[in-house]
Amino acid sequence: MEAKFEFMPSGSVTSPKGFLAGATCAGIKEKERLDLGILASEVPCVAAGLFTTNRIKAAPVVLCQQRLRSGKAAAIVVNSGYANACTGEQGLADAAEMARLAAGVIGVSAEDVLVASTGVIGQPLPMERLRAGIKQITLSRDGGHELGRAIMTTDTVPKEAAVKSDGGGFTIGGVAKGAGMIHPDLATFLCFLTTDARVDIDFLKVALRQAADVSFNMVSIDGDMSTNDTVLLMANGRAGDKPISRGSGQAEAFQQALNQLCIYLAKEMARDGEGATKLIEVTVGGAPSQAAARLAARTIVSSPLVKAAIYGKDPNWGRVVAAVGRSGVEVVESKIDLYLGGICLVRAGCPQPFDREEAVRVLDKGEVIIDLNLNLGSATATAWGCDLTEEYVKINSHYTT
Amino acid sequence: MEAKFEFMPSGSVTSPKGFLAGATCAGIKEKERLDLGILASEVPCVAAGLFTTNRIKAAPVVLCQQRLRSGKAAAIVVNSGYANACTGEQGLADAAEMARLAAGVIGVSAEDVLVASTGVIGQPLPMERLRAGIKQITLSRDGGHELGRAIMTTDTVPKEAAVKSDGGGFTIGGVAKGAGMIHPDLATFLCFLTTDARVDIDFLKVALRQAADVSFNMVSIDGDMSTNDTVLLMANGRAGDKPISRGSGQAEAFQQALNQLCIYLAKEMARDGEGATKLIEVTVGGAPSQAAARLAARTIVSSPLVKAAIYGKDPNWGRVVAAVGRSGVEVVESKIDLYLGGICLVRAGCPQPFDREEAVRVLDKGEVIIDLNLNLGSATATAWGCDLTEEYVKINSHYTT
Repeated sequence: MEAKFEFMPSGSVTSPKGFLAGATCAGIKEKERLDLGILASEVPCVAAGLFTTNRIKAAPVVLCQQRLRSGKAAAIVVNSGYANACTGEQGLADAAEMARLAAGVIGVSAEDVLVASTGVIGQPLPMERLRAGIKQITLSRDGGHELGRAIMTTDTVPKEAAVKSDGGGFTIGGVAKGAGMIHPDLATFLCFLTTDARVDIDFLKVALRQAADVSFNMVSIDGDMSTNDTVLLMANGRAGDKPISRGSGQAEAFQQALNQLCIYLAKEMARDGEGATKLIEVTVGGAPSQAAARLAARTIVSSPLVKAAIYGKDPNWGRVVAAVGRSGVEVVESKIDLYLGGICLVRAGCPQPFDREEAVRVLDKGEVIIDLNLNLGSATATAWGCDLTEEYVKINSHYTT
Repeated sequence: MEAKFEFMPSGSVTSPKGFLAGATCAGIKEKERLDLGILASEVPCVAAGLFTTNRIKAAPVVLCQQRLRSGKAAAIVVNSGYANACTGEQGLADAAEMARLAAGVIGVSAEDVLVASTGVIGQPLPMERLRAGIKQITLSRDGGHELGRAIMTTDTVPKEAAVKSDGGGFTIGGVAKGAGMIHPDLATFLCFLTTDARVDIDFLKVALRQAADVSFNMVSIDGDMSTNDTVLLMANGRAGDKPISRGSGQAEAFQQALNQLCIYLAKEMARDGEGATKLIEVTVGGAPSQAAARLAARTIVSSPLVKAAIYGKDPNWGRVVAAVGRSGVEVVESKIDLYLGGICLVRAGCPQPFDREEAVRVLDKGEVIIDLNLNLGSATATAWGCDLTEEYVKINSHYTT
C-alpha cells in the first residue's frame, strides 16, 4: 500500500508539533557564523540513535550511546567547529557539561539531553565560549532553520525538509550535515530527525535502522565513518494517541515517510559533497542478493576514478565495470548491461557504439544516473555520491590551517 | 643471516645474464612514444606470476594465467595505450596473436610467450599497428631501459633497478609501471622481474608471493586492483648450476634480494603516484597480528583525507587516528602513540604539544614518515603511498578524452 505524503522541502526539525530550536554565534569558529544550537521537545520523547562504527568514538557519541539506553530524550545540544574526539577524559567531561548547561536553559534533566559535535579532531572544546553561548540561545517554534545552519562546516547549504502524512496526521522533520560524505572517513555526518507521531520505542529503533540502510548508508562506503557520525530520532507523540508499533496500521506509512525524508537528506548531502559539481546516482540491479547489490552500488559511486571521470564529462565506462569487478560481488563479465543516463554503453558485456556527444551532454547535467545490471538475480540497490574535483583536494588539504 | 647485495639503481631487466629487450613506437598511443616492447630470455625460463583479483580480468591476464600453469616461459610482449580489457572474444584472440607475433620475432614457441597490456579499458587493440610494430623491435642486451619506457602511461619516470648478490653470483632485475597506484582501481600495475639465478619453480612461486606481500601489496589497498595488474618473474638459470629451492643455502639470500628490489620498485611507484609531490611511508607497530598491522598501515596510507592533509603540509593527526579507527583493526584509543617524522603527536591516546612549524617543515620534505604504535602486540608492517593533489584529479578527469 502506497501511503500519501506531503513533502515539504522548506520544512525543518521544528515542523512537527511541539519541537523548538535555536542557535547562536558562540565564537567557536573563527568566522562569525552560527556554531551552537539546541533542539528540544516541549514534552519528553522516545528516542533512538545510530552511531559511527569507528573504533575511535568522539566523546558526544559515547555520551549519546549511554543515555539512549533509556530509550528517551528531551533535547539535543550541538556545536560545530570542534569534534570533541580524541580528547580523553576531558572530552567526556566537556560533553557532559554541554548537556548540563543546555538542560539548565531548557529546564529538563541533564540525563535527557543528547550531545553532538562536528569539526576538528584532537583539540579540546573551547568551553568558555560554549558556556557563554548556550545561555544566549533562544528557542522558538520556527528555529529549525537556524539549527540547520549552526551544524554546517564545509557544507555550502543546509539540508532540511519535512514530510507530512496525509492520513496519519503526523509530521517528520529532519536536518543533516556532512559535505565530506564523498570520503567520509573524517568529515562528520550528523542527522537529527523529529516527529510528533507517537511511536513505540522498539519500532522506532527498527524504523530508523531501515531508513538509514536505504539512505545514509548508501551515501558512504561500508565502515568508512567518522569518529562523530550520529543519527538521532526523537518522537514526542504530540500528534497521536495510539502508539505506532510494528505491524500497526500506521507503521508502514511511518516507515515510508521516514525513508522518503532520509533519502532526500542523503541525496542533498551527496549533492553538496566537498567541491562537488554533480550528484551521481548508481543503481545496481540483477544482483544475487541485496547485500551484493548494495556493495556493488556503493563501490561504483565511491570509486575516485569513476568520480573523476564524471567530473571530466568523460564517458569512460571501463572504470565503472572495473569498480564493480573489484567490489567483491559476483560478476560475470558477459552478462553485464550498463546504462549512462539511459544510453546503453555495454550490453551482455560487449561495448556498444554510442553517440559520444550525447553522452557528454548527459554528463554535463547536475544529476548523472548510472544503471548497471548484473543479470544474475533480482536484487536492486541505489547509492548516491558526487564527482571528485580539484576543489575537493583544495578544501581537504587546508582544513585545520 | 643478512646476505650482502649490490644495489644497482641504474640496473634493469636486462642486467641479469641472458636477457634481451627492445621496444618501438608502434603508434598505439597518439603521441610519438615507445608503446610496444619485448623482453626475452636467451634460454627457457621457469616463470611465476601474480595477477589482479578483480573479477573482470583483461585478456592478457587470462592468457598469462593459462600459460603459467606450465611453470615456464621464454618472453613477454607488452603494449601501453590500450588495456585489452572488456574486449570479449576478440580481446582473447588479439592477446594470443600478440604472443604469436612476438614468438616469430624471437624464434620461440607462441605458448612460451606471455602478454601484458595497460591503458584504456573497453576498446579493441589497434592490431594493424601492433602487427607492424612488433616486427620493428630489435632485441639487445641493454634494451631493458627501452622496455621500461615503453610500459609507461601516466608514469612520469620509469621504475627500474637490479640487485646483485655478492655471494651467490646471481642478479635480479626489475621494471614496474603504475603511477595510478594511489587509487589503483583502474590504473594498471605491471611489474616484470628477471633473474639469472637457477630457481626451483615451487620456491620461485613462494618467493614471489612473499616479496609482493611486503612491497606491491603494501602500496595498494586490499582488493583494489585493476583489470590488468600483473607481476611476472622469469628465472633463466644462467648464473647457477644448483637450483635454489626452499631451505637451500641460497634461498634466504634470493628472498632478501627479491624483497629489496620489489620494495624499491613499490616505493618508486608510490613516489610517482599520479599528481603526487611526496612519498608517504606509514609503519604500524604494536599490532595484535601481522594482518592487523598490514591492514592498519594500508588504511592510513590510502585515506584521501590523510593524503590531502599531507599535501597541504597540515599536521592534522586526527585524520590518521580516525583512519586507523575505521580500519577494522582492534584499536584502544588510550594506548595509541603517533609520530610524524620523529615528532611525537600523540602518546597513550593524549594529544601532545608540538612545534607546529617543525611539523610543517617535516611535511614539506619529499618523504613523510608516519609511525603509529597500537601498543597491543608485537606485529609491525609498513605501507607506502603518496599525497593527494589537484593534479591527481586533473589527470583522472581527462584520461580517455
